[in-house]
Amino acid sequence: MSAPTREEALALDAADPLRGFRERFTLPKDVLYLDGNSLGALPAHTPERLRRMVEEEWGNGLIRSWNEAGWYDLPRGLGDRIAPLVGSAPGQIVVCDSTSVNLFKVLTAALRLRPGRSTLVSELGSFPTDLYLTEGVAPAWRLLLGRDGDTLDELLDADTAVVLLSHVDYRTGRLQDMAAVTAKVQASGALMVWDLCHSVGALPVELDACGADFAVGCGYKYLNGGPGAPAFLYAAARHHDAARQPLTGWFGHAEPFAMSPEYAPAAGIGRFLTGTPPLLSFAGLDAALDVWASVDMALVRAKSLSLTSFFLRATDALGLPTVTPRVDSERGSQVSLQHESAYAVVQALIARGVIGDFRERDVMRFGFTPLYVSHADVLDAAEALRDVLESKSYLDPRFTQRGAVT
Amino acid sequence: MSAPTREEALALDAADPLRGFRERFTLPKDVLYLDGNSLGALPAHTPERLRRMVEEEWGNGLIRSWNEAGWYDLPRGLGDRIAPLVGSAPGQIVVCDSTSVNLFKVLTAALRLRPGRSTLVSELGSFPTDLYLTEGVAPAWRLLLGRDGDTLDELLDADTAVVLLSHVDYRTGRLQDMAAVTAKVQASGALMVWDLCHSVGALPVELDACGADFAVGCGYKYLNGGPGAPAFLYAAARHHDAARQPLTGWFGHAEPFAMSPEYAPAAGIGRFLTGTPPLLSFAGLDAALDVWASVDMALVRAKSLSLTSFFLRATDALGLPTVTPRVDSERGSQVSLQHESAYAVVQALIARGVIGDFRERDVMRFGFTPLYVSHADVLDAAEALRDVLESKSYLDPRFTQRGAVT
Repeated sequence: MSAPTREEALALDAADPLRGFRERFTLPKDVLYLDGNSLGALPAHTPERLRRMVEEEWGNGLIRSWNEAGWYDLPRGLGDRIAPLVGSAPGQIVVCDSTSVNLFKVLTAALRLRPGRSTLVSELGSFPTDLYLTEGVAPAWRLLLGRDGDTLDELLDADTAVVLLSHVDYRTGRLQDMAAVTAKVQASGALMVWDLCHSVGALPVELDACGADFAVGCGYKYLNGGPGAPAFLYAAARHHDAARQPLTGWFGHAEPFAMSPEYAPAAGIGRFLTGTPPLLSFAGLDAALDVWASVDMALVRAKSLSLTSFFLRATDALGLPTVTPRVDSERGSQVSLQHESAYAVVQALIARGVIGDFRERDVMRFGFTPLYVSHADVLDAAEALRDVLESKSYLDPRFTQRGAVT
Repeated sequence: MSAPTREEALALDAADPLRGFRERFTLPKDVLYLDGNSLGALPAHTPERLRRMVEEEWGNGLIRSWNEAGWYDLPRGLGDRIAPLVGSAPGQIVVCDSTSVNLFKVLTAALRLRPGRSTLVSELGSFPTDLYLTEGVAPAWRLLLGRDGDTLDELLDADTAVVLLSHVDYRTGRLQDMAAVTAKVQASGALMVWDLCHSVGALPVELDACGADFAVGCGYKYLNGGPGAPAFLYAAARHHDAARQPLTGWFGHAEPFAMSPEYAPAAGIGRFLTGTPPLLSFAGLDAALDVWASVDMALVRAKSLSLTSFFLRATDALGLPTVTPRVDSERGSQVSLQHESAYAVVQALIARGVIGDFRERDVMRFGFTPLYVSHADVLDAAEALRDVLESKSYLDPRFTQRGAVT
């Protein structure tokens, strides 16, 4: 394909039905931000929401705000606001804890729902916390898809209890066929757990329609809920009565304020709650969901594919290998290019205000968030990348030395 | 003892070395707040700290703030700021998750450190989440101190792996002798886990000096970290190398950004971390700890005992039974009075701006936070309580009808 032109970028942006969303975010002027898949940008009205929670709800309302400001309802209420973004009926999602903690809860609950089976299947290339948690949950056997070249079909058998996969891979951006994989896993008698961290807010997700059993997802990437925003957890309603998760804290109790000495799980999705929620962080996610309330996910997907394919075309001439699928239906909302000095190139780009990120071992990862990234941005980023590579400015020791956190 | 007078209250307040701290909090003018043991008040500079994290660190810094604003160091850094308040050397506390989740981590880690033993001892009157978590951790046996009248001495034997107790009871305000109990438990070969939710920030705690093994505590009560503020977790350094907690997320990994597929716990206290921390809530606790940096806990304890004994004297004539010890050395920083219509009386007081709380079944709980409560406040609260009881205004249906959340 031919390299895209500035005129083409501007024409696409002029016709973009989502272009109005850019002004609902506050982004620094000197930055071109392609890391919203790691930490989403600040919605413009979030500071006011935080001020209100801190000064009015906490400062003036004090303990009364648990009732009067609706704090007590936030874990379920924010879950129901996320539900339409992931194709879930109400009452199947709670916002709580971190993705890691929620993985522990749903994996343990899922294993307990398959008592005669002892194998958990995960994927070698998963985001590491998924792998670590499958170690920690400690079923009798853990198989890693991708370790020995086996396909999922070859790994599934009558002993498989649970399969955990990422809907979109954090590193490559590869998108799984949720419907087909879920059906295949369930046909083997196992339960399917999806990690939605890199798909929620990036593309339409259809948990109910695909018949997913459980899912977890992240509040601080495409959803723009703020640094370390609370995560969420989905459990299909058909599992609620039988599901038992191990982190049996008082917020998941049927009557938290009865102060009964025995644990009795709440009816429905509430039984997946554990402790008191970190409400200032909840306010950040609450504000972000105001933006999502008026977003059409089909438009997000269309623009996302337009942005990522535009970037692939714009960087084609650089001759860099990519681990990201070029076929639209297999790609999330990021493009990962490879370079032997990937770390230094990313640092050199950041120094110019073009923020993507590095992932081991040789991946330069660029995330395209349709609500606040334009095709003109994509072209600017591609040109900056070409400049850095051609000028070899990335060889500067400022960029090659590895920091403590990358 | 004779009823205290207004003159006595004013004289005590005039001589109070902590009186200057009141202006470091923002409290509504029409409220007398005696529920800081449930949700602490708003430090006056917290809104600015939140604004800075939201607008500058998140909005402008974006992903760069993990390094440049020190986000990555906050779980350990805030832990080290809490350390002097609980008598811990640096490097033994992390701030993370909720108290419930942290209880799961330390109880499981403690049980794994005593593999030949299978009994966990908890206390029937504990805050329920402690009981529910000891159910969830599921050792072979769980004994409940207080169920059959047995003393701790009678329950401890060669099969006891772990004992979990509250330093100060949430309902009665009874303070345990941490040194004596820890020594007794450890003499039996078991490990001692302390729940500090109602003692941290209320009185001096000496974890290291008492030889405690593990502890958890709350950020949103006496510490004033904000609604649902992150909790903390203490593990004595001698246990770090051998301790294995089950929530093995990427933040507790030795090299979180190496993206290694195998879990390897971080050296030291960092292995107790799990997922990405909810940073807006961390900012609230960070701001609160600025206040604590200049607080002398011995002065806090002296004023706390002065306030609670003053309240006991001021309410003596009402003839209400109390579950709170009258002996100073056995009392935390609250007074719990009993009344058959406790719920309604508390509601009637709240309607007058005197905020305490109700706890099942008949307890009116009044918390005295030495940084922002005065002896004059105590007298005002006692007079309001007398008015409500004598006028029987609490019999109004507005007050007797139970709300969804109490």
